[in-house]
Amino acid sequence: MAAASSVLHQVPIALGDRSYSIAIGAGLIGDPASWSAAPAAAHGVIVSNTTVAPLYARQLQAAIAPRHQQLHLVVLPDGEVHKTWATLNLIFDALLGHGCDRKTVIYALGGGVVGDMAGFAAACYMRGVPFVQVPTTLLAQVDSSVGGKTGINHPLGKNMIGAFYQPRLVVCDLDVLRTLPPREFSAGLAEVIKYGPIADTSFLDWIESHIEALMRRDTDALAHAVRRSCEIKAAVVGEDERESGLRAVLNFGHTFGHAIEAGLGYGAWLHGEAVGCGMVMAMELSRRLGLLDRAWVQRVTSLLRRAGLPTVGPALGADRYLQLMRVDKKAEAGEIRFVLIERPGLAVVRSAPDALVREVIADCCRPA
Amino acid sequence: MAAASSVLHQVPIALGDRSYSIAIGAGLIGDPASWSAAPAAAHGVIVSNTTVAPLYARQLQAAIAPRHQQLHLVVLPDGEVHKTWATLNLIFDALLGHGCDRKTVIYALGGGVVGDMAGFAAACYMRGVPFVQVPTTLLAQVDSSVGGKTGINHPLGKNMIGAFYQPRLVVCDLDVLRTLPPREFSAGLAEVIKYGPIADTSFLDWIESHIEALMRRDTDALAHAVRRSCEIKAAVVGEDERESGLRAVLNFGHTFGHAIEAGLGYGAWLHGEAVGCGMVMAMELSRRLGLLDRAWVQRVTSLLRRAGLPTVGPALGADRYLQLMRVDKKAEAGEIRFVLIERPGLAVVRSAPDALVREVIADCCRPA
Repeated sequence: MAAASSVLHQVPIALGDRSYSIAIGAGLIGDPASWSAAPAAAHGVIVSNTTVAPLYARQLQAAIAPRHQQLHLVVLPDGEVHKTWATLNLIFDALLGHGCDRKTVIYALGGGVVGDMAGFAAACYMRGVPFVQVPTTLLAQVDSSVGGKTGINHPLGKNMIGAFYQPRLVVCDLDVLRTLPPREFSAGLAEVIKYGPIADTSFLDWIESHIEALMRRDTDALAHAVRRSCEIKAAVVGEDERESGLRAVLNFGHTFGHAIEAGLGYGAWLHGEAVGCGMVMAMELSRRLGLLDRAWVQRVTSLLRRAGLPTVGPALGADRYLQLMRVDKKAEAGEIRFVLIERPGLAVVRSAPDALVREVIADCCRPA
Repeated sequence: MAAASSVLHQVPIALGDRSYSIAIGAGLIGDPASWSAAPAAAHGVIVSNTTVAPLYARQLQAAIAPRHQQLHLVVLPDGEVHKTWATLNLIFDALLGHGCDRKTVIYALGGGVVGDMAGFAAACYMRGVPFVQVPTTLLAQVDSSVGGKTGINHPLGKNMIGAFYQPRLVVCDLDVLRTLPPREFSAGLAEVIKYGPIADTSFLDWIESHIEALMRRDTDALAHAVRRSCEIKAAVVGEDERESGLRAVLNFGHTFGHAIEAGLGYGAWLHGEAVGCGMVMAMELSRRLGLLDRAWVQRVTSLLRRAGLPTVGPALGADRYLQLMRVDKKAEAGEIRFVLIERPGLAVVRSAPDALVREVIADCCRPA
């Protein structure tokens, strides 16, 4: 708390009366000034998990204490396997047990799983209370900070139950990334790299030339990576808040990625690892459709590898991959919709022949 | 199906890009023309319950069959006690089990409980799919048709988990009210009568002079009652879709009413019965605050009695009433907010001294 705090970037998210701002900087969590844009209310509730709460909950509590008469902490079990109704209900039990009213502010302190669940709880509790995102993983900072997607998993599919619900404020404290395990950090880089192929080749160039700085978690490099990722995502989401069209391009790598996660059981691979590998598969499918050349696919694949990510898919077998992808939310009447790269920097959503998808799986994954 | 169908009234609900229309008439469910404003999609899912499905599901299926390649029926157990996550999950299981995509149309065929759960499932499934309300109780036709409130109960409070989510279309078929048990019909009349004290004394006059016609379920009288109720509610909701202020007046009778329902256990009294009795208590509280005279309170109480409703509250004891009312969604920082009648035709939301509330409970309820 004695450490100097500095906001390096502010990214405004323009969504009419649901607009908010993302603060990116160092030493932000423990600084009371970071929270001035959040509503004051009788009750504040920090939702975190068993890994993050011991590290940062006390700092956050001290910083927001002046804003609430009562402050509660809900600690969830950590991990994607717990992104279920049963865990979500722990939040509702606490909110009702403490007599929290409809002005209660929920602070999501953790990675994507905590953010998705705390956000969904905020969307549903008394049909909606304000919430604030405090993402503590790189993946959450560059992905779930923008877009308002919240939700839980169902045994038959990931993120199948949820809501679009915007936070009032997002605070990305880069200091917290120092305690992130290497695998989690790399998983976050997968989503950073994603924004290159789908939207901005000059950002891809920048990542390539700063991958060493990013890997050693240099604050200025991280600040730029988080800022540019949020800006690109914000531009896409601003045009299509409820994912009727354009926004689907953000799911580049996610169709194959979700199949990997569901096929291995949630939690075996990290979400970002599955997405990184899914990007390789989606690029390979784009190449086979004549959209990309081999050198460019290899260039991005190599960058993913330098970011510490797996680039060969697990051996689920083509039938299982196809079956899992048919329940993807983008699927329409059973037809799988892929996010493909039409040319570097431009994504497109389209279907592809099953035979070609099977070739990609044979080529990019371990043999079944 | 051979019966002539006729739309007697259309009530437009103006909510910007979430606007929709309520059709009120006879023979509507079985007429394919009734559904032309609903989206066509590969999958259609009728959500109903064990009481309503045997009566009307086949009619509805036949009428909407041309609009969907696959039509599924989900039959839930009947009753407020089943308005839980476990029952809601039956809908998600069916949607995912049938491979329903994000364009799937959900039809809620039943009373308020079915509408609230099917609507909440539609709000959450893949973060939102279109839904159509087919309310089969008077209460659902005059209350849940307008306003977009959806949700489920939590052991610690009614409707604590939910969403604001608008239907694409509401079809109120008055013919279905003929099969409604007398208690349920009376419960619906409680919400019709409610609109008089809070908004329209001439409508209250009309109800008084048509209460016999309504009690014998005369189609024209019902058509007017449903229409006028929906119009009044639409005017209120149109000004305050997310219940930040004005809309709370629609909860007249609900603060005491929810305490009755929760105190006796959901399902012991019907929601409308509890609300009717809650209205008597809220009027009595208004009278003790000097807002209403005794004659007017007696006049409305007598009308509720002629509508077949209980007007004396159960013996929960004042402490329990107060405890239950403090978790009401309108409560702020533990202070109960009551919807009171400032003068006939005008409601106001305010708090009241506990001592006065205790007097009302002593006066309006059976001794504890």
